[in-house]
Amino acid sequence: MTTSTHETRIDVDPEVPLVRITREFDAPPAKVFRAHTDPELVAQWLGPRGLEMTIDHYDCRTGGSYRYLHRQGEEEYGFHGCFHEVRPDKLIVQTFTFEGMPEGVALEKLVLEDLGGGRTRLTSTSLVDSFADRDAFVASGMEVGVREGYERLDEVLARG
Amino acid sequence: MTTSTHETRIDVDPEVPLVRITREFDAPPAKVFRAHTDPELVAQWLGPRGLEMTIDHYDCRTGGSYRYLHRQGEEEYGFHGCFHEVRPDKLIVQTFTFEGMPEGVALEKLVLEDLGGGRTRLTSTSLVDSFADRDAFVASGMEVGVREGYERLDEVLARG
Repeated sequence: MTTSTHETRIDVDPEVPLVRITREFDAPPAKVFRAHTDPELVAQWLGPRGLEMTIDHYDCRTGGSYRYLHRQGEEEYGFHGCFHEVRPDKLIVQTFTFEGMPEGVALEKLVLEDLGGGRTRLTSTSLVDSFADRDAFVASGMEVGVREGYERLDEVLARG
Repeated sequence: MTTSTHETRIDVDPEVPLVRITREFDAPPAKVFRAHTDPELVAQWLGPRGLEMTIDHYDCRTGGSYRYLHRQGEEEYGFHGCFHEVRPDKLIVQTFTFEGMPEGVALEKLVLEDLGGGRTRLTSTSLVDSFADRDAFVASGMEVGVREGYERLDEVLARG
């Protein structure tokens, strides 16, 4: 099995409280999209290694919603949100809350661009209403989860 | 019928691309909440006078979604979004898109505070990802619709 080692870029926007993640994948947009919308595939890669992901529901369509749990040993972390718009192979706009901080809500936008030759550029932005919350999120070590998650996604894409 | 004439405050945040609307109502939180969640009531006040509101669906619960149309003469404007969290009598977090600008998405948070004596303070914030879009929204004359809508909401609250 060959997996790519593309760089995951994580940028904080200087103007607005937003984090932007950019990553390329050696798979066409339709396949990357499916790995984000099919709950059986999502459960195989979302989040860092060493966590067990349980999906409560994952109804990835415009107007749908989701909730999932990450478990590590005794610890359990819940996440939920709703899907504002899902445009096949191109766009997913959703909300996101970590249930340990129930007042915090992010507006997330995932854009898939077809680079040709079976390659895709993914851009994921996460907008919150305070720079302090955005910077605390970045400082929390989220990069590890994002980078490992996308390495796992490379493996899912290589398998299927 | 007595209707109040409370001031509607509309503030733009200096730090983040957010608009904050503050308004008091002479009704308890449960009643103001119901006027935001029961589609038959929502259709009686949301938006400026002189528009006809048609609700496609309005499933105001955590994980639900909505779509409605405003008609004025020949013109028709569609709006849709999803409900991230609905906490009875206290909080509604939702997304919002005007379908004439389908790439624009706002994250909206409505907070109801019990002021006692059958009065409620409503604070509604709308967050977008660019100051230019936020300022264009404010400059578009949205105050008229917001102020008139809340006058109509006063009337709905006085009736029921």
